[in-house]
Amino acid sequence: MTLSSLKMSRRIRRTPFTDKVEWHGVTGFTVVNHTLLPKSFQNTTEEDYWHLRENVQIWDVGCQRQVQISGPDAKRLVQWLTPRDLSQAMPGKCLYVPLITENAGFINDPVLLKISESKFWLSIADSDVLLWVRGLALGAGLDVEINEPDVWPLAIQGPKAVHVMAEVFGSDVRNLKFFNFDWFDFEDSKQLIARSGYSKQGGFEIYLMGGDYGSRLWEKLFDAGIKHGIRPGSPNIIERVEGGLLSYGNEMTIEDNPLECGLDRYCDLSGNTEYIGKKALSLIAKTGIKKQIRGIQFSGKAMDACSIPWPVFSKTTRQAIGKITSGIFSPRLKVNIGLSMIKKNYWDPGTEVLVHTEGGKIVSGTVCTLPFERCS
Amino acid sequence: MTLSSLKMSRRIRRTPFTDKVEWHGVTGFTVVNHTLLPKSFQNTTEEDYWHLRENVQIWDVGCQRQVQISGPDAKRLVQWLTPRDLSQAMPGKCLYVPLITENAGFINDPVLLKISESKFWLSIADSDVLLWVRGLALGAGLDVEINEPDVWPLAIQGPKAVHVMAEVFGSDVRNLKFFNFDWFDFEDSKQLIARSGYSKQGGFEIYLMGGDYGSRLWEKLFDAGIKHGIRPGSPNIIERVEGGLLSYGNEMTIEDNPLECGLDRYCDLSGNTEYIGKKALSLIAKTGIKKQIRGIQFSGKAMDACSIPWPVFSKTTRQAIGKITSGIFSPRLKVNIGLSMIKKNYWDPGTEVLVHTEGGKIVSGTVCTLPFERCS
Repeated sequence: MTLSSLKMSRRIRRTPFTDKVEWHGVTGFTVVNHTLLPKSFQNTTEEDYWHLRENVQIWDVGCQRQVQISGPDAKRLVQWLTPRDLSQAMPGKCLYVPLITENAGFINDPVLLKISESKFWLSIADSDVLLWVRGLALGAGLDVEINEPDVWPLAIQGPKAVHVMAEVFGSDVRNLKFFNFDWFDFEDSKQLIARSGYSKQGGFEIYLMGGDYGSRLWEKLFDAGIKHGIRPGSPNIIERVEGGLLSYGNEMTIEDNPLECGLDRYCDLSGNTEYIGKKALSLIAKTGIKKQIRGIQFSGKAMDACSIPWPVFSKTTRQAIGKITSGIFSPRLKVNIGLSMIKKNYWDPGTEVLVHTEGGKIVSGTVCTLPFERCS
Repeated sequence: MTLSSLKMSRRIRRTPFTDKVEWHGVTGFTVVNHTLLPKSFQNTTEEDYWHLRENVQIWDVGCQRQVQISGPDAKRLVQWLTPRDLSQAMPGKCLYVPLITENAGFINDPVLLKISESKFWLSIADSDVLLWVRGLALGAGLDVEINEPDVWPLAIQGPKAVHVMAEVFGSDVRNLKFFNFDWFDFEDSKQLIARSGYSKQGGFEIYLMGGDYGSRLWEKLFDAGIKHGIRPGSPNIIERVEGGLLSYGNEMTIEDNPLECGLDRYCDLSGNTEYIGKKALSLIAKTGIKKQIRGIQFSGKAMDACSIPWPVFSKTTRQAIGKITSGIFSPRLKVNIGLSMIKKNYWDPGTEVLVHTEGGKIVSGTVCTLPFERCS
């Protein structure tokens, strides 16, 4: 993996928690939504992986910026943005919503929080959804206000997250169900807390309103977590790939559609929902997709996370059939694993492939379903 | 300055020149438009600065992504995007065009290239203009196609750039005037070359069409440049701040408008041009702006580039009056210099200020006009 320093400037936003992650000795960042996302501290990715599965971590995910849509036409606009049927959406529920273009290409895959009947937040992955939504609203003359509120998500993840959260926010937080949210006191403020996060180990995301609370929120959670072995962390590439969690910009781009990403259950293809890209998506559903997300297990020495896509070829026909977009060695499954968009005639589980890894080595592999837990 | 490694992934795009800058020993990157921008090689920022002023450098600015707008409504849409009157715009001219929201907040400040009467490129700074423009077009039902072509700018900058370019593209390139573009042969292709670039030292940008040509284009230019002392480089913070070149995301954001940035000459306030934000911008012009871009000269030891904004206070009233958003020591002017949005009652040249620099030191400074060459 290429190691180069990241040059800092105001253009790359710090979060209310950046001082804290620096104090904890952050060693690597990436940039998401023009914002710093800490990616590594003193431990190896594997040490962080085991720690996340067994303990609790605090993650600065302030890069998950919020797009707030409010006003008389907010509900209509939000439905227009996504193929997911939102007619039954309730305040207090988090909803994963693919956003697509008129050609059904992926624009982003945020989590939607319905704050009220006329106010919504989109908690976004890495693209300027604010500009997309403002452009649509202005072009169509909708009566909405769209802006970025002073909100900064902080994640507490891992099996012991619930104990840490209960100490800081009270035991009611234990009753919060997966992908639900509610309001909890912090000092003199009410804060939105969701049972969610970018891992499969369980946990919470605090959508901190008011960056000024940031340092104290971090400190309170960290102090409460010490007896549970809390550590600063970040979305873990091993855990994420094992769990089949997709990353916008890695696994899918504007060139891919939700059906190719296996997200059919979030697409209303036959109902009355009206949304951007419905015609294109329905046609794709009818004619059938030509590639789809799969897992690849592959042999060879334990791989570091791929920093460029690794081409995948059929072992029998030698045709190029896809690229591993996120890949790494799983110390638990004891095999290299990767996420890849695979061509139709090659996507059946068990298909034998060749992976061209960084450094030019070619290794054997097999197509499998996701998440990797189900792999043979 | 914080030094942390940048974690690579497919989400952060490489350019057709990234292999080359790695071969040349790049030591630092930043991320612009989800794309790597090399920021440092083996030399110090000051060494690179002097070299750029006296010789020639090759810059991978593939992060300057193109938004291509074509079709029957393209001309109308492009005018709608910017306060600049484009009625006289001609193919072959580069135009700096502020893009603003309906509230006159800055969305981006691209260079517009009019390829033909129905085809335009926006060569963008760091925000997803593609999504903004696609949203507008879809919302308003315009008959246009908007996409990103396979185009990757490469810059040749510095006083000797013209000799290097003439060797590779023929002596006609010498006749290209500042902010004009024309088409030149490269191997079996026609390439768009503009006399432009993100420095005040003169030079060219090749809008390489077809990433596959990238390696060979770099090699040819580099080989031709050896006798002129060519080096790999990047936009240089000392040179940029001295010249008063603004950087979107640093000097201005969606919170600032073009009049505050001193860009009145790109805003048609009294004419018939119809564009997004006209009403808001006209009102702002009428009531008067409350802050504006200025230079600050300040004392103290030679500063490294600021990685966070440095607060600026009035020396007399002790009021907060702005923040230095890009600042560094100028080895030529022998003083620290910074770009800053300064409040109205304090923006007169000569106003005495206090700058709170990284590390907490407070130093004296003075407001001045831009570019810094004109400073007292």
